[in-house]
Amino acid sequence: MIQTAHGTIETPAFIPVGTKATVKAVLPESIATGGAQAVLANAYHLYLQPGADIVAGAGGLGAFMNWPGPTFTDSGGFQVLSLGAGFKKVLAMDTAVRSDDVIAAGKDRLARVDDDGVTFKSHLDGSSHRFTPEVSMAVQRQLGADIIFAFDECTTLVNTREYQVRSLERTRLWAGRCLEQHQRLAAEEPGRPRQYLYGVVQGAQYQDLRRRAAEDLAAMDFDGYGIGGALDKSMLGEIVGWVTEVLPADRPRHLLGIGEPDDLFAAIDRGADTFDCVAPSRLARNGSVYAPTGRYNIGGAANRRSYQPLADDCDCYTCRHYTRAYLHHVYKAKEMICSTLLTIHNEHFIVGLVDSIRASIEGGHFDEFRRQFLCGYYGPSAAATLAETGFGIG
Amino acid sequence: MIQTAHGTIETPAFIPVGTKATVKAVLPESIATGGAQAVLANAYHLYLQPGADIVAGAGGLGAFMNWPGPTFTDSGGFQVLSLGAGFKKVLAMDTAVRSDDVIAAGKDRLARVDDDGVTFKSHLDGSSHRFTPEVSMAVQRQLGADIIFAFDECTTLVNTREYQVRSLERTRLWAGRCLEQHQRLAAEEPGRPRQYLYGVVQGAQYQDLRRRAAEDLAAMDFDGYGIGGALDKSMLGEIVGWVTEVLPADRPRHLLGIGEPDDLFAAIDRGADTFDCVAPSRLARNGSVYAPTGRYNIGGAANRRSYQPLADDCDCYTCRHYTRAYLHHVYKAKEMICSTLLTIHNEHFIVGLVDSIRASIEGGHFDEFRRQFLCGYYGPSAAATLAETGFGIG
Repeated sequence: MIQTAHGTIETPAFIPVGTKATVKAVLPESIATGGAQAVLANAYHLYLQPGADIVAGAGGLGAFMNWPGPTFTDSGGFQVLSLGAGFKKVLAMDTAVRSDDVIAAGKDRLARVDDDGVTFKSHLDGSSHRFTPEVSMAVQRQLGADIIFAFDECTTLVNTREYQVRSLERTRLWAGRCLEQHQRLAAEEPGRPRQYLYGVVQGAQYQDLRRRAAEDLAAMDFDGYGIGGALDKSMLGEIVGWVTEVLPADRPRHLLGIGEPDDLFAAIDRGADTFDCVAPSRLARNGSVYAPTGRYNIGGAANRRSYQPLADDCDCYTCRHYTRAYLHHVYKAKEMICSTLLTIHNEHFIVGLVDSIRASIEGGHFDEFRRQFLCGYYGPSAAATLAETGFGIG
Repeated sequence: MIQTAHGTIETPAFIPVGTKATVKAVLPESIATGGAQAVLANAYHLYLQPGADIVAGAGGLGAFMNWPGPTFTDSGGFQVLSLGAGFKKVLAMDTAVRSDDVIAAGKDRLARVDDDGVTFKSHLDGSSHRFTPEVSMAVQRQLGADIIFAFDECTTLVNTREYQVRSLERTRLWAGRCLEQHQRLAAEEPGRPRQYLYGVVQGAQYQDLRRRAAEDLAAMDFDGYGIGGALDKSMLGEIVGWVTEVLPADRPRHLLGIGEPDDLFAAIDRGADTFDCVAPSRLARNGSVYAPTGRYNIGGAANRRSYQPLADDCDCYTCRHYTRAYLHHVYKAKEMICSTLLTIHNEHFIVGLVDSIRASIEGGHFDEFRRQFLCGYYGPSAAATLAETGFGIG
């Protein structure tokens, strides 16, 4: 359980993403009714648009977006290096192009990382900006979320090990600067509710780097820890395990950007407490629906005359009031309500899955629940493969 | 007051439009909370997509779209001739091109009207379809709305008087066929709740034609009356007055496709009971906001740092929970929630305006309320002009 100035979060918990201070396509009440305990917004996006001062003027992120519960913001570390630098394009390039220089060291049109911070261009208008640990802390203080993240360098799977080592040292130094700046800013406003600052553990796929990063950050007085970086799906549980073994047991651990069912089981098994991911919402906007028997697309012809709900036994608003036939129709007609209704369902599905995992842990039948859910969701053979490649080891 | 199988409608009332079985961008509960008593969907659109049989299979329009209250469908008469025929393109042409042939008589790519019905092409896939009075009644019976409209030929302001005369006779004959077919279909299903059938008065801007059409339809046993056709805004009150003087006093009158504040006052003054219009919703999706002081765009720079609600003293969901600064932000960020929140406000504004007009009539101060509202909304000088050109005459 995490206690914040805006309420408590029972863990493990899935936190829906509201990048630009809105969980896309839905009213906040719909997300709350669906079981969400908190939302996570993005410091990079809100810094550029509308500006952190505008959010501060409204009384902070929660008041601005009409979300009375706990809020998170991430630091912008990932976004300045991805959106600011054409990250996805780089990732999509042939892996033969592995030069770290291309990814993060001074080419035009890309973000430029130096030991002090990152200079990047706005993905909105191309204007130049600079984030440092101190700027990120100031921006996140203005945004006013209950839980904020230290500014880190998020590397990719195509960076060399040599680069990962250099980057990790930079992230360590930045973590210290974040903590100092955060404490300084908090001291200036003694009456304000405390913001919890999480340090972010990087280190890519390397066990020694991940463990060292966790040790370094554990030695600092962070309120919690983020686990970040590009993660190879097959190693996800293992990486989380390396890190959580080292981190202090009494501090919450947030796994950044993860939300697929198998990953949630694997990461919770290894000690992760909270998660955020755009997947439930993004998939919904593409017509993709979570169900206990796996994902399917509402545009499929089989749904045209189906007066069943999206998923059997689902008690979300969408499933209580709408049939697949209706949702198929509004999908084909490109009506906005399709995104709204599928987002309500998908967020409820993933939030509810993590709630069920919590209940299974409390009830002492986590392994049984995992086996049963994954067999239903991925099919027995896929679930068996998952078992071989790691799940169930913990 | 109109009593239907799904509840009563206090009149005068504004009926939000849910063309394709969704009031665009909002959940039905949001519209109900905003005060809407009924919604109006479109027989042409639902016939093409998803098909009237699909809606029937769900238990009819209301059950399909999760709207438990009263529903309307229009006949498709306007849409087959507009969407099916590139109507807007024709209207946009130089008015020198007045040939009735171009508009409605057999050119490729256009709808073809004959005395029996209309052959038209789907605006979705170009496929050919045919609507007759009998088909429209069968489709609207399958859709199952509480209030349905007779199939009519909707002419334009650029048709010649000679064409209007011919068209009006056709619409009169179709009205009789609709009534017969409707009674036949109802007799086949004696247990089903009664659908009310409204005859539609056409006649364009001609007083003699409008009065004759009203007399002809008044002589038939319709449950209510629609007033249709392209209307010159400056003549709107006058045209409604010609028609309502002739129609039976105990039957409701629905003015099709009208929703601007001055038009609502003028039409209610002359005896119209219900209204539908896409304007509140369409304007919302373009960022345009109704307020007692007139419409404005949320994208305007003045809203960037305004922590005021959209309109002073508005008690809609949007105004209770969000500032202009937030709405400006989500407008600029092209977030769907902007359309949702502005639609909630705009529909509430127009629904609430008509509710206030109803209260002013009941309280005996309609003229005072009209003067006050229109001065605030259009400014004193515009309100004076409106007075000269007709308002306040009744």
